[in-house]
Amino acid sequence: MLRIEIYTHEHLEKILFDMKGCDMMRKEHDFLGEMEVPDEVYYGVQTVRAMENFHITGEEVDKEFIQAVVMVKKAAALANMDTGRMKPEIGNALVAAADEILSGALLDQFPVDPIQGGAGTSVNMNVNEVLTNRALELTGHKKGEYQFISPNNHANMAQSTNDVFPTAIKVCMRYKAKKLIEALKRLAVELDKKAVEFKDVVKMGRTHLQDAIPITVGQEMASYASAVRRGIRRIQGASASNLLVMNMGGTAIGTGLNAEPEYIERVRIRLSEVTGEEYHTAENLTDATNNTDLFADMAAATKVTALVLIKMANDFRLMASGPCCGLGELKLPMRQPGSSIMPGKVNPVIAEVLDQACYQVIACDLAVTFGVENGQFELNVMEPVISYNMFLSMRCLTNAINTFVDNLLVNLEVNEERCRELVEHSVGIITALMPHIGYENCSALAKEAYETGRPVRDLVLEHEYLTADQLDHILLPREMTTPGIAGAAYHEYRNSLAHLKKD
Amino acid sequence: MLRIEIYTHEHLEKILFDMKGCDMMRKEHDFLGEMEVPDEVYYGVQTVRAMENFHITGEEVDKEFIQAVVMVKKAAALANMDTGRMKPEIGNALVAAADEILSGALLDQFPVDPIQGGAGTSVNMNVNEVLTNRALELTGHKKGEYQFISPNNHANMAQSTNDVFPTAIKVCMRYKAKKLIEALKRLAVELDKKAVEFKDVVKMGRTHLQDAIPITVGQEMASYASAVRRGIRRIQGASASNLLVMNMGGTAIGTGLNAEPEYIERVRIRLSEVTGEEYHTAENLTDATNNTDLFADMAAATKVTALVLIKMANDFRLMASGPCCGLGELKLPMRQPGSSIMPGKVNPVIAEVLDQACYQVIACDLAVTFGVENGQFELNVMEPVISYNMFLSMRCLTNAINTFVDNLLVNLEVNEERCRELVEHSVGIITALMPHIGYENCSALAKEAYETGRPVRDLVLEHEYLTADQLDHILLPREMTTPGIAGAAYHEYRNSLAHLKKD
Amino acid sequence: MLRIEIYTHEHLEKILFDMKGCDMMRKEHDFLGEMEVPDEVYYGVQTVRAMENFHITGEEVDKEFIQAVVMVKKAAALANMDTGRMKPEIGNALVAAADEILSGALLDQFPVDPIQGGAGTSVNMNVNEVLTNRALELTGHKKGEYQFISPNNHANMAQSTNDVFPTAIKVCMRYKAKKLIEALKRLAVELDKKAVEFKDVVKMGRTHLQDAIPITVGQEMASYASAVRRGIRRIQGASASNLLVMNMGGTAIGTGLNAEPEYIERVRIRLSEVTGEEYHTAENLTDATNNTDLFADMAAATKVTALVLIKMANDFRLMASGPCCGLGELKLPMRQPGSSIMPGKVNPVIAEVLDQACYQVIACDLAVTFGVENGQFELNVMEPVISYNMFLSMRCLTNAINTFVDNLLVNLEVNEERCRELVEHSVGIITALMPHIGYENCSALAKEAYETGRPVRDLVLEHEYLTADQLDHILLPREMTTPGIAGAAYHEYRNSLAHLKKD
Amino acid sequence: MLRIEIYTHEHLEKILFDMKGCDMMRKEHDFLGEMEVPDEVYYGVQTVRAMENFHITGEEVDKEFIQAVVMVKKAAALANMDTGRMKPEIGNALVAAADEILSGALLDQFPVDPIQGGAGTSVNMNVNEVLTNRALELTGHKKGEYQFISPNNHANMAQSTNDVFPTAIKVCMRYKAKKLIEALKRLAVELDKKAVEFKDVVKMGRTHLQDAIPITVGQEMASYASAVRRGIRRIQGASASNLLVMNMGGTAIGTGLNAEPEYIERVRIRLSEVTGEEYHTAENLTDATNNTDLFADMAAATKVTALVLIKMANDFRLMASGPCCGLGELKLPMRQPGSSIMPGKVNPVIAEVLDQACYQVIACDLAVTFGVENGQFELNVMEPVISYNMFLSMRCLTNAINTFVDNLLVNLEVNEERCRELVEHSVGIITALMPHIGYENCSALAKEAYETGRPVRDLVLEHEYLTADQLDHILLPREMTTPGIAGAAYHEYRNSLAHLKKD
Repeated sequence: MLRIEIYTHEHLEKILFDMKGCDMMRKEHDFLGEMEVPDEVYYGVQTVRAMENFHITGEEVDKEFIQAVVMVKKAAALANMDTGRMKPEIGNALVAAADEILSGALLDQFPVDPIQGGAGTSVNMNVNEVLTNRALELTGHKKGEYQFISPNNHANMAQSTNDVFPTAIKVCMRYKAKKLIEALKRLAVELDKKAVEFKDVVKMGRTHLQDAIPITVGQEMASYASAVRRGIRRIQGASASNLLVMNMGGTAIGTGLNAEPEYIERVRIRLSEVTGEEYHTAENLTDATNNTDLFADMAAATKVTALVLIKMANDFRLMASGPCCGLGELKLPMRQPGSSIMPGKVNPVIAEVLDQACYQVIACDLAVTFGVENGQFELNVMEPVISYNMFLSMRCLTNAINTFVDNLLVNLEVNEERCRELVEHSVGIITALMPHIGYENCSALAKEAYETGRPVRDLVLEHEYLTADQLDHILLPREMTTPGIAGAAYHEYRNSLAHLKKD
Repeated sequence: MLRIEIYTHEHLEKILFDMKGCDMMRKEHDFLGEMEVPDEVYYGVQTVRAMENFHITGEEVDKEFIQAVVMVKKAAALANMDTGRMKPEIGNALVAAADEILSGALLDQFPVDPIQGGAGTSVNMNVNEVLTNRALELTGHKKGEYQFISPNNHANMAQSTNDVFPTAIKVCMRYKAKKLIEALKRLAVELDKKAVEFKDVVKMGRTHLQDAIPITVGQEMASYASAVRRGIRRIQGASASNLLVMNMGGTAIGTGLNAEPEYIERVRIRLSEVTGEEYHTAENLTDATNNTDLFADMAAATKVTALVLIKMANDFRLMASGPCCGLGELKLPMRQPGSSIMPGKVNPVIAEVLDQACYQVIACDLAVTFGVENGQFELNVMEPVISYNMFLSMRCLTNAINTFVDNLLVNLEVNEERCRELVEHSVGIITALMPHIGYENCSALAKEAYETGRPVRDLVLEHEYLTADQLDHILLPREMTTPGIAGAAYHEYRNSLAHLKKD
Repeated sequence: MLRIEIYTHEHLEKILFDMKGCDMMRKEHDFLGEMEVPDEVYYGVQTVRAMENFHITGEEVDKEFIQAVVMVKKAAALANMDTGRMKPEIGNALVAAADEILSGALLDQFPVDPIQGGAGTSVNMNVNEVLTNRALELTGHKKGEYQFISPNNHANMAQSTNDVFPTAIKVCMRYKAKKLIEALKRLAVELDKKAVEFKDVVKMGRTHLQDAIPITVGQEMASYASAVRRGIRRIQGASASNLLVMNMGGTAIGTGLNAEPEYIERVRIRLSEVTGEEYHTAENLTDATNNTDLFADMAAATKVTALVLIKMANDFRLMASGPCCGLGELKLPMRQPGSSIMPGKVNPVIAEVLDQACYQVIACDLAVTFGVENGQFELNVMEPVISYNMFLSMRCLTNAINTFVDNLLVNLEVNEERCRELVEHSVGIITALMPHIGYENCSALAKEAYETGRPVRDLVLEHEYLTADQLDHILLPREMTTPGIAGAAYHEYRNSLAHLKKD
Repeated sequence: MLRIEIYTHEHLEKILFDMKGCDMMRKEHDFLGEMEVPDEVYYGVQTVRAMENFHITGEEVDKEFIQAVVMVKKAAALANMDTGRMKPEIGNALVAAADEILSGALLDQFPVDPIQGGAGTSVNMNVNEVLTNRALELTGHKKGEYQFISPNNHANMAQSTNDVFPTAIKVCMRYKAKKLIEALKRLAVELDKKAVEFKDVVKMGRTHLQDAIPITVGQEMASYASAVRRGIRRIQGASASNLLVMNMGGTAIGTGLNAEPEYIERVRIRLSEVTGEEYHTAENLTDATNNTDLFADMAAATKVTALVLIKMANDFRLMASGPCCGLGELKLPMRQPGSSIMPGKVNPVIAEVLDQACYQVIACDLAVTFGVENGQFELNVMEPVISYNMFLSMRCLTNAINTFVDNLLVNLEVNEERCRELVEHSVGIITALMPHIGYENCSALAKEAYETGRPVRDLVLEHEYLTADQLDHILLPREMTTPGIAGAAYHEYRNSLAHLKKD
């Protein structure tokens, strides 16, 4: 047989082998020793060590997150120039390098795996090295000439992975939260439109999957919209105040060693400029370094919102079940042939993929839960797995909502005839009679209706509980969808039906 | 061998058998038929059916929740009298029965299992039956004479399980949330006290469980307090607005059939009176009936708060490790002999039980997640498993925090000598030298210090990086615990050390 | 308003207060000091300390688990007599006390909370104390006269909580596993019966909730039965070898200090006798003490089995949806009125409660996951929360399956007419034509059928793809439910339809 | 500020835009209509629809899984030739195309997102299209000339996504399980080596993070090895029988419509040949189609194994804590500078990444749990999210174990001096005296030792519990690490110490 190739390991070996085979190599060293790095790459010795140590998912770090780290670095360089600690020629070169990456360049220079040991040090150093080497080039030096500009002394000046990494996670999460909120808003707006479009389509409401009492399709759509809006507020809540709390200045353990108070204020201002959002320094920087529950808040907000979407997607799948042997109340747009073997079959694939994305979101929340739980003392070293899952989660959910809106909701149709038909054949409307003739009589009538298949109306008349005229005012499905006792305002019916009342 | 007895089933059989063996039985019926019920009990035929159908956990419903349901029932009876739909003699009897239960009576009359099919109908009917039968007695009738007062027509007037049950969950959750918040506040206050008490105890900060740089025990305690306060805000947030949103008036599917607008407003006012809290009617009652994400919000808030507590409890366990072979920085109060075999052993049992309670909270959050996910159409029938887990979760967490405060925190001591000793022998203080002599030199020094076991200070002097006088200003552990470059204000040291700076 | 009473705390305070108010108190001490204990109770000072420290769930430890601990204690006492280390007068008294508890006595003497710090020490000491005090009485002494018989030296001889507790968990889990397996077997057998009963009822198969191709209700039932049998094997697998591995002899950390080799073999033999099952000593006793993954295996086996049951219960709920506006293929026995407001409504409450029990099982698996993850060095101190969840999980699942069998499955009926009707109106049967006329033609036909509402058969004839005679042999729903190309054995149709084949 | 670029959506838009801008386009159609496809690509209309519908993770399907699907397709083509249903010229071309992909070609032709609606139809059709178009080329036709070879009629002959997709998941999971088992075996072997290497290094055992009694580092390593071996058996168990159960022949819903019995047997034989493993046809093909619990079994097996690894990794992190202020018992190889700010700091990054990978595994198990739970009727449409998570989980765990072995374990060293020192200063050895002088006396001694800091030995002599000679035989840490009563065989000490015994 043919062997299945191992892509992940081979990929790693290939990269490392390719490195070794490069024509031009430069030597770099750290306190663990010297290594050769292909001269063409902008990353350096610590990135290469990370590649050797961490080949876990086989993926690369989210590029938006890389850019968020770069934003933080840019802000720090500007702040360090502001305080006079960093020479302008160095600082400006670092800023210029940062701007290149923010405009989309060099994004292939970040090969480290998102799941990594070391609390993000490898990502931080990868960015420090790329910025430094590009800055060296921009100032007429060669890559690796760290005596002129140094990844640790300059790109990382007054910083630690432990304040840079969580700050960058927040910057990136806010960005992704915005995209998610936009998607949710589009969803709510489209649901609103459908609520209006279907406001007069009465259908049978169901509880326990059993016939209950009438409702309109519009009410259902409005109900989804209402729940989605709660999701928007939830994501906004988890994003708003929390994620604008910056760790910068805390350095290694939140105590601020090596970060001057002046710098701490400047980096706040600079980060606000770079990101276009007003950042605040955490009131308690050690807490902000030790604890990562803010990320769990966002994970939870995303998860709970996903639960509402699962419920909605499942309702759509149920209502669109059929076409002949299901409920058949909704008609979803046909997006692709549904089967490789069953001709003509079309499945609710867009609703299904929303469900699946939501399951992913729930799973990511659990990964975040484990990550956040496992902080110790002055740091949570699990931030890489936390951020990897948050980014995956938010990306999946945003994308799935967008496809749901674009490829399902905007072209959603309702089968009005089917809805009407089901209401008309239902016994559930009997509930409207309960205030008039009591629970016991209604129960007996319902039982008879199910057993005989005869309409409720006929049975009521036969038993002489109410008159035809009274029933004409009570058994109105559309009216049953609003509060009140069907058939008459309460005081009126109380008088007219006084002889029937027992209480 | 001796057989292990099966308590759960036996318990059930015993109850049902005891019933059958009762001297005095009364007959009750519903539309499924007639059953005998022991005349002494206040519950009726539907409760007995529920007992037969649902013997799942073997437990009974949380008594605080029963009382919350009773509060809702009382409010509804009052509101129905307000609108004139319910006769005062009936309504007042129901209210009087409710008051008895609220004062602690009859709480043994609610035998239904908390995990039950039917979206809480069994709990609702259990309460309806007990209220009705007690009201019958109070009005001179016998139990079961439902022609005078009826569980469905009166105790349940203008209500459905589907608005009563979720409203009562909210009432009960708010109550439990208050208790939880109180516990968290006590915890925060005690941590604050410890932050003050230990504000001058310098210890070695740790990241990755590796020596980092100095911090004070006070800072650590303040950091826990800060994170706990976030927990308080989180629970308050999930509790405040959300849980004061009442479902009453939605009846079966949120459309309000059989609930007059006047009643809907009156029941809101009455529930506010009965509970002492200002309730609002959900803006969208169908949404409020269909979706249970509010409960998932509280579950998530509780869970994320638990994550912070796990981290804290684990830090305590680590810092108290020893007494001879561990970190030995904290001394926990001795609460019980720790071992049945190892004499004199004392374990951090209170911190351990907090961890375990938090794991329970996380697990309950997942049960709620599954419950909330599985709503369909106009209702979420999984509310029983949702509420069971929420109540278990909140109870465990509140209790575990309280024991942590009372039995551990208030008598917590720190081993100052041990803390000082560790800082003094540490190489990590070298970080303070980095702004002065650069990352590379520091790295080389650190390596040498680890290999030779010699103090950092001696090595710096030997290599002539800094003078003894300079070191006297830099290597001050207490000073390293605050922001800034140790040894001097930045501008000063910049001048004094100008010859060393490379950038 | 009336205050909701706090039952949990009050309960604790009441117990402790009642103690203090007892007429007769005895003094007991441990190395932390002296305490008064009501003379009437059999537990002692360490149990009282545990009650003060751990009031978490408000529940008591599972009584079956208490009996399992007692079985282990009995085996240890017998083994210690066998080796001559324990005097017969003491050993026999302890055995007699154990037998009393195993026969159901004294079970109210175990008030400790199942979630407790200390890795089960409180449960172990509670049992040691009750056994000792009862043994003291049986030998003519008074409770508390530990100079004659001692909880630590005798009841716990050659034992540690760390070998007793996990061994007892296994004994109890095996017992509960047996009950669970019995329930699953009953379920499989009843499903088999239904598979036979409904073997000729053809219905429309559904994928994606969309009409697929015909299947029989019997095939569906057989499919559930097949999956349930996998569940039986799964529980058996997790129970069989794993749970018969005994920790006894490992004592404190698995190294066996204070347990003689002779005793280790004797306690194995004695435990096998006491439980009636053949126990083995763990090959690596330190591993068995340090690691609790065996419990996670059982949690996982239970969880995966629950997933299959959720799917089955949901299918039942869907197929029973209606009665007028749903699929209406199954008729579930009516177990209780389904609504307090909608007369005549009956819900699939038994299937719903199975779902909910399964969610609980999934949640408990997560609690176990957290517990097992958090072992450290020579012990996992989280065993209390692990065992609490395992017992809750297994109890809920067993009970829910039993109610599903008894109250739903045995009286399940199918609506044959409805099933037939749906098949007849379906377009899905077109799949049977695919081998004859190809995917493309079939797709076009299906589309036409959906758009026009005309029967597939008519369209095929109209397009002259096949003859009426050929269709008579192909469009047979019952035949479509078995492997093969409908209409003819392959070789025959290949010849007869040669003109149509394109490949 | 610079905008962060949206990579995921841009990526999609770019692909679709590039398509539209291609010079050469070909037209393809399905029953939903016609689309243009760039002529250079091998995939067709259904793949393009999938790309438009599902842009969720932004990733591509695992390439090993693509090859597994191709293996299944190859087996089916061979089987269809065997039965005579497929013409050899078509079948051979499909087989040749399959072989190309299996040898690593064309792997860039599978752009569909792993999370997708439709139960894998898009993956199946992507493979069908690529195989078909390549086969067309190989037989001298042009891509898209499906009248000669058709994706549905030929590449998919006698198959459905619903039997192909789960079968391919199993093929791929078995492959990944093998890699995982290899990694676990390497881990166990290296742990064994360390068990031997450190067999005489006595250290202090710890329970509750508190000093317990002595153990050897070798025993700890052997204990990890023992637990890892249980993991191997667990993965083997979940892989062995389960995953060799083939769905092929079940077609759309497991009833086998359009799959001749002869083919079902031939495809089994052919798949066994192609994969080199003996496959069996599921005994109940509808069960195999409806239920996906086999995947949950593997997810659970992987998860439980991960729990053991977390515990091990955490122990390593704790034992390596320091270098000055921690336990300092283990020395891990230095793999990378640990901090961007703290010079000389080295962190246990390899152990940390193993933890994180394990958290990912746990999260993936939950995604699988949700997926498996949500099957309905004849199919589980959530298989894409199930397989995505399984592949991610198994990949991460295998990689993390391999880096743990290579980059940590093989070069692990122990700090013998530190271990010895801690044991010598510990009070915990007092447990060895318990059989000699009883629990109470030992407790009092331990208390005195902790309070005075004096050695246990001195105190025992002072109190005249035992003689110096007796203590010489009892207080031997190395001896305490094996079963038995330290100091003497039981019968001997019983005689010599008769005067001390109280029982």
